[in-house]
Amino acid sequence: MIKVGIVGGTGYTGVELLRLLAQHPAVEVEAITSRSEAGVRVSDMYPNLRGHYDALAFSEPDTRRLGACDAVFFATPHGVAHTLAGELLAQGTRVIDLSADFRLRDADEWATWYGQSHGAPELLEHAVYGLPELHREAIREARLIAVPGCYPTAVQLGLMPLLETGLIDAGHLIADCKSGVTGAGRGAKVPSLLAEASESMKAYGAGGHRHLPEIRQGLADAAGGQVGLTFVPHLTPMIRGIHATLYGRLTVEPGDLQALFERRFADEPFVDVMPTGSHPETRSVKGVNVCRLAVHRPGDGDTVVVLSVIDNLVKGASGQAIQNLNLMFGFDENAGLAAPALMP
Amino acid sequence: MIKVGIVGGTGYTGVELLRLLAQHPAVEVEAITSRSEAGVRVSDMYPNLRGHYDALAFSEPDTRRLGACDAVFFATPHGVAHTLAGELLAQGTRVIDLSADFRLRDADEWATWYGQSHGAPELLEHAVYGLPELHREAIREARLIAVPGCYPTAVQLGLMPLLETGLIDAGHLIADCKSGVTGAGRGAKVPSLLAEASESMKAYGAGGHRHLPEIRQGLADAAGGQVGLTFVPHLTPMIRGIHATLYGRLTVEPGDLQALFERRFADEPFVDVMPTGSHPETRSVKGVNVCRLAVHRPGDGDTVVVLSVIDNLVKGASGQAIQNLNLMFGFDENAGLAAPALMP
Amino acid sequence: MIKVGIVGGTGYTGVELLRLLAQHPAVEVEAITSRSEAGVRVSDMYPNLRGHYDALAFSEPDTRRLGACDAVFFATPHGVAHTLAGELLAQGTRVIDLSADFRLRDADEWATWYGQSHGAPELLEHAVYGLPELHREAIREARLIAVPGCYPTAVQLGLMPLLETGLIDAGHLIADCKSGVTGAGRGAKVPSLLAEASESMKAYGAGGHRHLPEIRQGLADAAGGQVGLTFVPHLTPMIRGIHATLYGRLTVEPGDLQALFERRFADEPFVDVMPTGSHPETRSVKGVNVCRLAVHRPGDGDTVVVLSVIDNLVKGASGQAIQNLNLMFGFDENAGLAAPALMP
Amino acid sequence: MIKVGIVGGTGYTGVELLRLLAQHPAVEVEAITSRSEAGVRVSDMYPNLRGHYDALAFSEPDTRRLGACDAVFFATPHGVAHTLAGELLAQGTRVIDLSADFRLRDADEWATWYGQSHGAPELLEHAVYGLPELHREAIREARLIAVPGCYPTAVQLGLMPLLETGLIDAGHLIADCKSGVTGAGRGAKVPSLLAEASESMKAYGAGGHRHLPEIRQGLADAAGGQVGLTFVPHLTPMIRGIHATLYGRLTVEPGDLQALFERRFADEPFVDVMPTGSHPETRSVKGVNVCRLAVHRPGDGDTVVVLSVIDNLVKGASGQAIQNLNLMFGFDENAGLAAPALMP
Repeated sequence: MIKVGIVGGTGYTGVELLRLLAQHPAVEVEAITSRSEAGVRVSDMYPNLRGHYDALAFSEPDTRRLGACDAVFFATPHGVAHTLAGELLAQGTRVIDLSADFRLRDADEWATWYGQSHGAPELLEHAVYGLPELHREAIREARLIAVPGCYPTAVQLGLMPLLETGLIDAGHLIADCKSGVTGAGRGAKVPSLLAEASESMKAYGAGGHRHLPEIRQGLADAAGGQVGLTFVPHLTPMIRGIHATLYGRLTVEPGDLQALFERRFADEPFVDVMPTGSHPETRSVKGVNVCRLAVHRPGDGDTVVVLSVIDNLVKGASGQAIQNLNLMFGFDENAGLAAPALMP
Repeated sequence: MIKVGIVGGTGYTGVELLRLLAQHPAVEVEAITSRSEAGVRVSDMYPNLRGHYDALAFSEPDTRRLGACDAVFFATPHGVAHTLAGELLAQGTRVIDLSADFRLRDADEWATWYGQSHGAPELLEHAVYGLPELHREAIREARLIAVPGCYPTAVQLGLMPLLETGLIDAGHLIADCKSGVTGAGRGAKVPSLLAEASESMKAYGAGGHRHLPEIRQGLADAAGGQVGLTFVPHLTPMIRGIHATLYGRLTVEPGDLQALFERRFADEPFVDVMPTGSHPETRSVKGVNVCRLAVHRPGDGDTVVVLSVIDNLVKGASGQAIQNLNLMFGFDENAGLAAPALMP
Repeated sequence: MIKVGIVGGTGYTGVELLRLLAQHPAVEVEAITSRSEAGVRVSDMYPNLRGHYDALAFSEPDTRRLGACDAVFFATPHGVAHTLAGELLAQGTRVIDLSADFRLRDADEWATWYGQSHGAPELLEHAVYGLPELHREAIREARLIAVPGCYPTAVQLGLMPLLETGLIDAGHLIADCKSGVTGAGRGAKVPSLLAEASESMKAYGAGGHRHLPEIRQGLADAAGGQVGLTFVPHLTPMIRGIHATLYGRLTVEPGDLQALFERRFADEPFVDVMPTGSHPETRSVKGVNVCRLAVHRPGDGDTVVVLSVIDNLVKGASGQAIQNLNLMFGFDENAGLAAPALMP
Repeated sequence: MIKVGIVGGTGYTGVELLRLLAQHPAVEVEAITSRSEAGVRVSDMYPNLRGHYDALAFSEPDTRRLGACDAVFFATPHGVAHTLAGELLAQGTRVIDLSADFRLRDADEWATWYGQSHGAPELLEHAVYGLPELHREAIREARLIAVPGCYPTAVQLGLMPLLETGLIDAGHLIADCKSGVTGAGRGAKVPSLLAEASESMKAYGAGGHRHLPEIRQGLADAAGGQVGLTFVPHLTPMIRGIHATLYGRLTVEPGDLQALFERRFADEPFVDVMPTGSHPETRSVKGVNVCRLAVHRPGDGDTVVVLSVIDNLVKGASGQAIQNLNLMFGFDENAGLAAPALMP
């Protein structure tokens, strides 16, 4: 039994960590912090947790108490982990950061996209990008994990087999992504109101989105060189789920794409390559740490289309964070992550 | 480890049994039948089950194979359990029927509401109404369970404390109930289309609904005498959930209603009386076997209002069925039913 | 052609006034005010208005400019019309107030429910409650209209025939009301987020809601004496629409209820009594100024159930405001209000 | 005043024609046919039409009665207009076909995609493709109109300016399209149920969809030569709306793309080019005959992204049909099509 802390637990990734950890056989939540809600019981804020964490209340961040944990999750806006991670690491606590703070290896690029200077560049060399399908061995040894973003997870898993094998033109990739509204967080903003966001579909950030440099960095790792990517996210009238539709142009005759994908992910517990001709639905991964993929080659032409779905709050955030924790502490990789998706 | 079968597994209560049983430590699903889908793997029909039941396929109903199970669930339209239950019981298999076949004690009343004669009146005396909050001890000994309907569960749990104590006029009860569309099943009907049912609210069956006699029978048990009930169900634009708003007129000064409710359900693992002034949301029970209740007395007048929410597919169907199974086989009552609700 | 102004045009009732007035043959929108958005073109904020009001921008409130209008609508939070209405009336401008400022005849009761003293009690005797089905003649002569609230409109129209004829016990009325989320306005609040409010149902204000005294006052007018009402509003996962389910206990043998309702509303252009056995859907009034009603008497018992649906933004707000304007200026009562509902 | 008939009026495009024509100053609906619903009043089937067409009932198809109309709309599955159009044309009635029967100029290609031989190849030379932005003059003179499909309308309008000017590689176009569920029609199919289609997103027909040849034909007209297109439609959890996200690779330095789009559609009453940097929402065209467009060039790279939204039932079907009618009969092009969109 290990003890974990959660910093910034009032948002959707925070409550999702609690929901999933309630089923984890080897983890106890020792502390969950929130400046604004300190003193409030988590089950008063999130009634789905009534009966599960009845003694747990939000507390002021306290680095001594957090430092006594084996691991601490950051479910915070960007910038917070910069401030606190170093101190916790110094106390021997492992840090699993769900924010963007340590995802980009280049502190200057981070500063450009986030509009402030990087707060802990000295930690960057220790940070491991927590995508197990690409960095599993490094994760096992890591003390600081940057959990990938939701869009980056769906896009990287979908394009990985094609880029690793050099089958497509890496200079002209297209990722048309559709996300449920929890991707925008729990902040009270007019465009996220049910009255504004339901019964409608729209793109946003077509000119440039903060996940773009992260995706490019990850795809470049897979491709072994720079990539060119057009990334258009869309707001979809649903609570959870990301559907990434990925387009690449074949540069060589690819052989059996279905077999390529199946082979690539044969040993991956959380990537499910669906049968030829499938169209994965986001609801098939609602609440679970799974990425389902299908690969198409319309009309046997030179364009390959990959369909990739995840739950943005699970494989795109809190579930992937726990998968990283499991690897770091030698637990079964699917501990706490074994239940099937809720469907319908 | 016991072996169970499921008859009629293609509907929503069937897949929900599979979803929940995947987490049950002591149950193995031996067979799931469907005439129309025989031969189809359950994970091909329900991709959320991929990775969980990869060897399980729908099969033709076979009473010998089902009779070799310790228990069989019926997730069928009414009439089917009438035909098969007797044969299974004779082989020593326990039967847990999610349909309406054995809910009404009076075969003639059943015939009136279902438009056909009762197919197994000789079994009625053996059937136990599977509402653990009212019949837990009888359930432990039962061989044939009639799992309560979704509306009846929400309404009975909400009114039970008031009727058992005789505080309200049992002759003039009102149950205004709102249900998600899975309550109408998985049949392809125009009114259940997203294009018809979303962005709208409507009542149905205001003149009389099949759950009315079942609710009346259950409330009469609690009240110790006949009751009068006006029951108006409404179709709500959501997938899961029932919200029952219950109105009763006080006939005596009631004392502390909050304390009454808390006391009544103090030992119930799946009934959660919320704090004074609460308004339970159906999403707080999404996917779980819980009924959350709140009791109000507006303006300290003579009308008491109870708010009762369940997930119609879980506490209103498949979860309650498993709760019954757990009682019948001496398992922990919450085996397989322990995960928190999915929220948001 | 008359000129109108709109004070507080950035909320849902403001944009709805613009949408409807764009089709009005005799009205020109001269000014629309908003302190926070002054200078912004209405079509930049509401792209559905592109091509309709391309020259119109929000402006600072200016009582001289507003006073030059024939009529001014207030689509403001409570308290604003108190401050400005008197000055406009003094300039000869008629005022149609969509807020709660002049709905209650008793300034003290207003103060109790709104938590501040009434700002213009001297105007109360001039205010006419703008429910044409009850006060059409007074509306024609009025200079200050209090447009009814959304819940009050649906409830009053549904109970009116029963109370006017004294058929039901006026002391124990029940109004179980379900509203889409636009009823909560366009404010950025967490509970109104799509991620919080969709896929869920909940009651709110069960202990007391600001529309309660308004409904009681209106029902008392119809009943000719005090009434007792239990009113429970519910938040429903849809954008628009109110479904009021109304329960009354018959005190006498009522005769033909269907005929009673049809007779009562025979000459009403915006009340549609549906055929016997109907269940009106809120989507059937989406975007239009219609109230559809159905009356049921389940099991021929002593409880009568009325189903009443409106679009909360139209017959429950902006459409009713324009219906009042039409009466005040001698236009066709349905000018600008003639299009059918959008369905599906 | 002209008289029109509607063949096959029970689906969504049929009721949408009625909704829009109720506001048309110069059109009277003489007949609406349906074999299955003959004798049923349209307002009994579609309560939103109560008060608008109270005398109109569905009737058996009768070519004499239809032939007495000035124009007849076909809102039928494919194949029906093949059978009846010739006879009506011979009687001097103009035919506006909303189905796919006359959209493809090549009868063999039609047969390939629709799995049956073309039923009226002799009429193909007379059919005009009813996209006014491309064929306005021909439409004015036409007697037989093939109303474009919903996806084809959104895609063609979005790519038209780029292809007409030869700025992009016409051989590798990508159309990633998202549609509300009414695009699948009013048929009772399990995947269209609210319980299946809401809270989820999925692609379909990634390997090939019937709208593909129609889009290719239209884009080839604009490009002046063959085009290559990858078209992936997605089912989106909303009732109405199409969002097409279109990707093209620039082959030359394009100059001012915004100005190009504004110039191309300057005189088009129903195409709205939004300001630079915009992201049109489908809800901004809910219920109206408008296509809103925005053009982006992310990072000033060589990929251009066009965002194109329509209401699939209006500009994608019934509204465009009426726009054609207006042109054919010399009415104002926006007669009956002038109301703003319903938002929120």
